[in-house]
Amino acid sequence: MKALARRSLRQVIGVIGGSTIETPEISFVARQLGSLIIEEGYSIVCGGLGGVMEEVCKGAFKRREKLGSKNLGVIVGILPGTDPNEANPYLDIAIPTGIGQARNVIVVLAADAVVAVNGGSGTLSEMALGWQFHKPLIALKTTGGWAEQLANQALDNKRSDSIIGANTPKEVIQLLRKLL
Amino acid sequence: MKALARRSLRQVIGVIGGSTIETPEISFVARQLGSLIIEEGYSIVCGGLGGVMEEVCKGAFKRREKLGSKNLGVIVGILPGTDPNEANPYLDIAIPTGIGQARNVIVVLAADAVVAVNGGSGTLSEMALGWQFHKPLIALKTTGGWAEQLANQALDNKRSDSIIGANTPKEVIQLLRKLL
Amino acid sequence: MKALARRSLRQVIGVIGGSTIETPEISFVARQLGSLIIEEGYSIVCGGLGGVMEEVCKGAFKRREKLGSKNLGVIVGILPGTDPNEANPYLDIAIPTGIGQARNVIVVLAADAVVAVNGGSGTLSEMALGWQFHKPLIALKTTGGWAEQLANQALDNKRSDSIIGANTPKEVIQLLRKLL
Amino acid sequence: MKALARRSLRQVIGVIGGSTIETPEISFVARQLGSLIIEEGYSIVCGGLGGVMEEVCKGAFKRREKLGSKNLGVIVGILPGTDPNEANPYLDIAIPTGIGQARNVIVVLAADAVVAVNGGSGTLSEMALGWQFHKPLIALKTTGGWAEQLANQALDNKRSDSIIGANTPKEVIQLLRKLL
Repeated sequence: MKALARRSLRQVIGVIGGSTIETPEISFVARQLGSLIIEEGYSIVCGGLGGVMEEVCKGAFKRREKLGSKNLGVIVGILPGTDPNEANPYLDIAIPTGIGQARNVIVVLAADAVVAVNGGSGTLSEMALGWQFHKPLIALKTTGGWAEQLANQALDNKRSDSIIGANTPKEVIQLLRKLL
Repeated sequence: MKALARRSLRQVIGVIGGSTIETPEISFVARQLGSLIIEEGYSIVCGGLGGVMEEVCKGAFKRREKLGSKNLGVIVGILPGTDPNEANPYLDIAIPTGIGQARNVIVVLAADAVVAVNGGSGTLSEMALGWQFHKPLIALKTTGGWAEQLANQALDNKRSDSIIGANTPKEVIQLLRKLL
Repeated sequence: MKALARRSLRQVIGVIGGSTIETPEISFVARQLGSLIIEEGYSIVCGGLGGVMEEVCKGAFKRREKLGSKNLGVIVGILPGTDPNEANPYLDIAIPTGIGQARNVIVVLAADAVVAVNGGSGTLSEMALGWQFHKPLIALKTTGGWAEQLANQALDNKRSDSIIGANTPKEVIQLLRKLL
Repeated sequence: MKALARRSLRQVIGVIGGSTIETPEISFVARQLGSLIIEEGYSIVCGGLGGVMEEVCKGAFKRREKLGSKNLGVIVGILPGTDPNEANPYLDIAIPTGIGQARNVIVVLAADAVVAVNGGSGTLSEMALGWQFHKPLIALKTTGGWAEQLANQALDNKRSDSIIGANTPKEVIQLLRKLL
């Protein structure tokens, strides 16, 4: 399968988290996470807006600029509205969907694995949808919000695994290496 | 506003819950809930499939048959797939959407208030989406699952209220009378 | 199959057409169409807004009121936005979807057959989608717009039939009796 | 506006067309179109499957490989299903949406301008939706299908322009330079 072959070269990490930043630590962790994901050779998909989404993209974008390699992943935002200018400025491509919160489904479906950072009800819906679609889920358990609350928990008995709790972005990368 | 006037005559209750029934009690409670909602004059919207969804519709359908009145609400199922024959047999109208789990968004948007019964990850995503859309949420806290776990909790700080826990279908109706 | 059995008792006609009325004749034809569809025992699904959609619903609503029977179909609007108050006032149930024009897909999927009245680009997209989903399509060829332009045409060679042209709402009903 | 600034550096061309290739000429034209679009510095979005979609992506992919520059656009496929392996092998990123034909809306929304090649009912729905969203539309009028039939036509009177007919991929690029 050609498609599979190409996909395995460039896997996609979905990063989910709120559009507001609650503490400077969340901002720092999100940026570091983006930086490490892109350095590892993955592409990134997120909801494309501000807050955690923007910090992750910024970290990835800046790191890729520094590394200067053309062989790194792309940064994609799946927007709820119809206007590409809603997007944060660190995306390679903005996908306005016009389907509102239903775009949460696409953010998790487009990912080979999903990482949650902090997060309110929107992030919670994405964690639940990622679980339904049998996506590997990692939660940064030091960031508060639903990521912290659901780390190391199963969302129902349809899967035998759990949402994996990670303490640091580095640990996330180690987990992704094993999972993908 | 004519539209508003008509809507206030026939409000819509979204009922969310899993497609499998875990205990006979859940089945009984779901049927009773459907029966009381329709008797109260509301319409019902749900995901249209089996399990809790079917029991709620069955309770409503049978009760309406017994009451024999033409002035009662309609029973609507918002299906994930494209085939209306996926629907449980107690709907007045089946809406195949072809948008998969993204239809969860529509189930909660179509409702004036949402009631959760038991529920796994699919129900959890609907509770989270209902919260985001500022829908009043009631959880039957004796039915287990995410309904029980999230009763009396706030999903984030964007709303000042909580998911309201209810012990019985009768209590749900009393809450709906106050909320709507 | 219980579901099938019930569906055959109450089939759903999708009516598509623009949100503006170009001539008084279109308004008259749309109202008559709604009236005849509901009298025939079908349910109606449409995009839920004004213009042709509202006239069809109004015709159905008024006719049902006059007939006074409780054994008639329901009138359903699938709205693009999140606000039920966008709906025209002749619906039994308004389904706000929040998915914008993607709701066009649902309008045709929810129908057992689709009837086009006049119509611009939105109606054209629904005719094309209805064709893709192998829905029987009827176009009122005296109403102008895309209904007139595509009457008696095939949209591609994936189906061996055509969009059936009809001259009057009465002829539409005769066609529906044969098709469903 | 940072977002605008970045977007203007890398605009997105949506290419729409069927999943089957009717003649070798269509295949050739589609590949050439992809090649020229990517060379011009645009990103490409399409439905991500086979046929015209695959030929466009292949042309772009091969051309980018030859040019060897890291400063070229990305190739994105918006898939109808949930499985990334449905995608053709020339995408940088596959976005499985799970929303079926409703993804047609996203293909046109994600584009700054849309180019149609040949095409049946699926492509027709995308042309109609692109028109509704006020996207500039170009049709390769030598490729048959709906692209040929609707070249130089307006789909309704809500816009004062027309779908612009082009004879060759080169002419498409000249038009895009003017339009964007």
